[in-house]
Amino acid sequence: MHLNTKVMIKNQINVVAFDADDTLWVNELYFQEAEHYFCQLLEDYLPQHAVSQELFKTEMKNLPLYGYGVKGFMLCMVETISRISEGTASFSLVNRAIELGQELLQKPVELLDGVTEVLESLKGNFRLVVATKGDLLDQERKLKKSGLQDYFHHIEIMSDKQPQDYQKLLKHLDCKPENFLMIGNSIKSDILPVLELRGFAAHIPYHTTWAHEQVESNLDHPNFIQLEYLNQLCTLLREV
Amino acid sequence: MHLNTKVMIKNQINVVAFDADDTLWVNELYFQEAEHYFCQLLEDYLPQHAVSQELFKTEMKNLPLYGYGVKGFMLCMVETISRISEGTASFSLVNRAIELGQELLQKPVELLDGVTEVLESLKGNFRLVVATKGDLLDQERKLKKSGLQDYFHHIEIMSDKQPQDYQKLLKHLDCKPENFLMIGNSIKSDILPVLELRGFAAHIPYHTTWAHEQVESNLDHPNFIQLEYLNQLCTLLREV
Repeated sequence: MHLNTKVMIKNQINVVAFDADDTLWVNELYFQEAEHYFCQLLEDYLPQHAVSQELFKTEMKNLPLYGYGVKGFMLCMVETISRISEGTASFSLVNRAIELGQELLQKPVELLDGVTEVLESLKGNFRLVVATKGDLLDQERKLKKSGLQDYFHHIEIMSDKQPQDYQKLLKHLDCKPENFLMIGNSIKSDILPVLELRGFAAHIPYHTTWAHEQVESNLDHPNFIQLEYLNQLCTLLREV
Repeated sequence: MHLNTKVMIKNQINVVAFDADDTLWVNELYFQEAEHYFCQLLEDYLPQHAVSQELFKTEMKNLPLYGYGVKGFMLCMVETISRISEGTASFSLVNRAIELGQELLQKPVELLDGVTEVLESLKGNFRLVVATKGDLLDQERKLKKSGLQDYFHHIEIMSDKQPQDYQKLLKHLDCKPENFLMIGNSIKSDILPVLELRGFAAHIPYHTTWAHEQVESNLDHPNFIQLEYLNQLCTLLREV
């Protein structure tokens, strides 16, 4: 961390924005469990790692059309079954893929360590915001289930997290980049675009990250902070 | 129309919000074409009208989970194929259903009559807003394709159109209900919830309405206006 990053953060920040999936609550783990199960289902056609590659290929092909979220994932599982089995698979596999997705949509929301304590400690001192990608209804539902809704001044569900998407959010919040701190587990989605706008960004790794979100990083940027645990945020923002 | 509704509208309104699908551009027609084609595909299993009923049943069952939009529609087609055929259908039907949905997501945006003229005439005099249900990415894409984006001060993509959803929008716009006019083709989604909040609402029927949105109406409410064509809005809002 650059020497004066801590000082700038303490003096300048008034909006703290949190990514949701794998920053506030467990998400990728559920997807990976579903995918693991899916790969087992198709073992008669291809080895599991090859099924996983085929699914990822389908997801990347359809991402511009479907965007992020569970429903797109379900459609990609169905399409992958059809392609891998060359249309010979039993319909029970399709039914199982749809059930897997519907189960994902109904998972309980499991908060990550320290989330409530951190929000409790920051509320009142900062405008707290959620900035998340994904399916509109699904993310709204998770937020309700999380019980965290009242901590947040604004919830932004974004179709993507490019610099222009953050720019829209900043405009909406009437907040300058130098007063904005984004917290998240994805270097690609939560950190780099915010740094590009000259905002501040803190990375808190999650043990599992979707291949699409993985970026090799050894970031050295004056507005970047690498943290290990979420509760380090309190120290960063409150103590001198 | 109540005698003084016109006068109140002329004096009070400063935000005019438009529904998008079937108010600004063609939507339901494309869905119905896709559904018609889908019913033909499954004719070997059930008469077309019965396929349509089964699809609708699947859609209503999954609506709380999937919400509105094309991806949910695609998943419901796949599920309906499986159920109707008792898992005996050829995979080519599943592929065709996915293609149908992907085609829907890539349709050109066809503006309805008078849209550009009306927006052109109102801009500058009112804050213009889009308030639409549906899939986040899909609605953003349609708005871009429509070329209408610059007319609007704010775009609200909602997971539902209940009174509390409009309340959130009004709060966000810092607008009182008595200064708000909503324009749309669905009595259920665009008119009734806004009237409940004591806002103003103008109904412009579209020749095709999804069964789920159909409400028998013979509305008599001091804040309600029935129009036949969108361009009547200019007269309503501008002339004395």
